[in-house]
Amino acid sequence: MLKTNQYFDGKVASIAFQGEKLPATVGVITPGKFTFDTKQKEVMTVVSGVLKVDLPQNDSSITVKAFESFTIEANQTFDVEADADVAYLCTYE
Amino acid sequence: MLKTNQYFDGKVASIAFQGEKLPATVGVITPGKFTFDTKQKEVMTVVSGVLKVDLPQNDSSITVKAFESFTIEANQTFDVEADADVAYLCTYE
Repeated sequence: MLKTNQYFDGKVASIAFQGEKLPATVGVITPGKFTFDTKQKEVMTVVSGVLKVDLPQNDSSITVKAFESFTIEANQTFDVEADADVAYLCTYE
Repeated sequence: MLKTNQYFDGKVASIAFQGEKLPATVGVITPGKFTFDTKQKEVMTVVSGVLKVDLPQNDSSITVKAFESFTIEANQTFDVEADADVAYLCTYE
């Protein structure tokens, strides 16, 4: 049975699954600003919508559109901001 | 709060959201063969994995890989088959 998770009072939700090579999730981020922590290295791909991302190694935020990806190293904190619903795919190394 | 749904005893799960232009879901299909019905025209995009799809207008099944899409008209029945977990994005017209 697939496992779904809700975060931030249901403003972010995800479904965990086994990707082709790595454990993965697909999820949705609703409008707002959210702070995530990584336990492992993650590659996040936006599959619908536009996400503003503040990465620890960047001075300014980046804008990530559908089918674009970014990488976050393990044990980092990063902020994302959505003006409208954003769907994403995330793989965990 | 985001709405998650489970189908086929939790072998398929989805999260509903508002896409940029259309209502949408992201979801996961676990290994097996499943029959879906459409109420509206749907465009389904595989975002992880490989899905075999039997569409009503096709004599043989098609193989849909990550970032490839297919369209199903409203009020149709179609079969999908996954050998491993498949993540998808679906928009509803």
